[in-house]
Amino acid sequence: MIIIDGKKISEQIKSEIALEVEIIRRKGEKIPHLAAILVGSDGASDTYVSHKIKDCEQVGFKSTLLRFDDSINEDKLINEIIKINNDTDIDGLIVQLPLPKHISEYKIIDTIDHKKDVDGFHPVNIGRMVIGIPSYISATPAGIIELLRRYDIHTSGKKVAVLGRSNIVGKPISNLLFQKSDFGNATVTVCHSLTENIREICIASDIIIAAMGNPEFITADMVKEGAVIIDVGTTWVRSETSKTGFKLVGDVKFSEVAQKCSYISPVPGGVGPMTRVCLLQNTLLSAKKAFYK
Amino acid sequence: MIIIDGKKISEQIKSEIALEVEIIRRKGEKIPHLAAILVGSDGASDTYVSHKIKDCEQVGFKSTLLRFDDSINEDKLINEIIKINNDTDIDGLIVQLPLPKHISEYKIIDTIDHKKDVDGFHPVNIGRMVIGIPSYISATPAGIIELLRRYDIHTSGKKVAVLGRSNIVGKPISNLLFQKSDFGNATVTVCHSLTENIREICIASDIIIAAMGNPEFITADMVKEGAVIIDVGTTWVRSETSKTGFKLVGDVKFSEVAQKCSYISPVPGGVGPMTRVCLLQNTLLSAKKAFYK
Repeated sequence: MIIIDGKKISEQIKSEIALEVEIIRRKGEKIPHLAAILVGSDGASDTYVSHKIKDCEQVGFKSTLLRFDDSINEDKLINEIIKINNDTDIDGLIVQLPLPKHISEYKIIDTIDHKKDVDGFHPVNIGRMVIGIPSYISATPAGIIELLRRYDIHTSGKKVAVLGRSNIVGKPISNLLFQKSDFGNATVTVCHSLTENIREICIASDIIIAAMGNPEFITADMVKEGAVIIDVGTTWVRSETSKTGFKLVGDVKFSEVAQKCSYISPVPGGVGPMTRVCLLQNTLLSAKKAFYK
Repeated sequence: MIIIDGKKISEQIKSEIALEVEIIRRKGEKIPHLAAILVGSDGASDTYVSHKIKDCEQVGFKSTLLRFDDSINEDKLINEIIKINNDTDIDGLIVQLPLPKHISEYKIIDTIDHKKDVDGFHPVNIGRMVIGIPSYISATPAGIIELLRRYDIHTSGKKVAVLGRSNIVGKPISNLLFQKSDFGNATVTVCHSLTENIREICIASDIIIAAMGNPEFITADMVKEGAVIIDVGTTWVRSETSKTGFKLVGDVKFSEVAQKCSYISPVPGGVGPMTRVCLLQNTLLSAKKAFYK
């Protein structure tokens, strides 16, 4: 059994990106530039955004953080986004979610120029991904594909159970995995809260992608010997052994499942670290105008 | 066993649309207007487009058919599309596919204003469909959902096998069926040319959507007693009994499968007639500005 080391892979990719940026710098070309918008003062959002900014610094990207009070109205926020859309120095723009209730997340995402939508949430990028036109893939599904690629875990003809159908994980990873492409071509079954006999579907699967947010849902009796397990669940639960009183738990009961499978991604340290690095990859792709002129 | 009568349902929907148009006319409001572009002189394309124009006449829509020689270059065609995009009288625009090889179909579809993309092929409409924002759904998947709705065939929690992963049928119908929505909420397995044990997957399914273009692929031994069969296959094969020397054959061996299932859509007369009527529905939705201002 091999533990998929997302932390190691993500560090490796960061070094690769840093090297590319160094070459860009030496050539005197424009340095990739990510802008992040943070509305309000939610502690978790604050942490996420500051990690993303720190990542930019580490690889040599420029970054701009725009903070707004949570009383900002929708029109004002839309105007700020339009300004960034028109700023030719900025390659990528992300708006940290969730937003305050009086602001429509969909409207905000729709306002971001799809050419700068390095989060891959804009309908144009999702639509292109589905029909197989290169586009920004959102961080979590991109991170999963990258892990499969780096560990040489082939998916062609394999039975895959995707548990969860969220817009940011379940739906995109399902579409990518049944796509006619490398690390696609799988036979995907999309499971969710209304699926009957999830156990039966899991045990017949070569690969399980668990993205439900249901702590330790997947137990050993649900897993085929030699299966590949990708755990995308991240739920904070109370813990007496942790200093903070909380620990991060995945959708998979790691201790018992690990013994049965060929590969498993742990929580934390599996898919999580990959998501941040995929944002950097998308920003670099935007700076290189890989998908859009 | 009930044969799903797509012809009857489509006539019924046409009458409903004609009635709506009549009301619009009496109120003196703008009549829905569909424009169709036909490039070249392919016999089949010619027939398809003329059917669509005839449908418009039947329900009282305005229609405009623009024909171009197959020597037209891409830039010129793009300019023609932009003209229609800017024509406020036109609600819907379709470009009949396939296009001559020197023209990029993707570029042409991308040029159509997504607000007038009543074929539902533009990335914005596909992306919105995937994330569950109302949008134009392309004709075949929309036709399938409409048949399920009119026959009151519920999909929630049902196991569905979708055979085929084309951009115009397999992918969109899969995304619709696992969506959190009425006539969604199914547990969908997407099968394709690289799927192993298709037979096993089919026999475990409550609903089979066959969209491979593989004549009579689905035989009785692949179907569970009481299953629902939607046949989207349309392949012309030689026939000695037909006047033209050809007949249209679906992906399902109707004679033997029909006896085992609860509902079955035949070819021809099942999904086929629905596709034309769904184009009318989308055009009416556009005229009513149902999704976009």
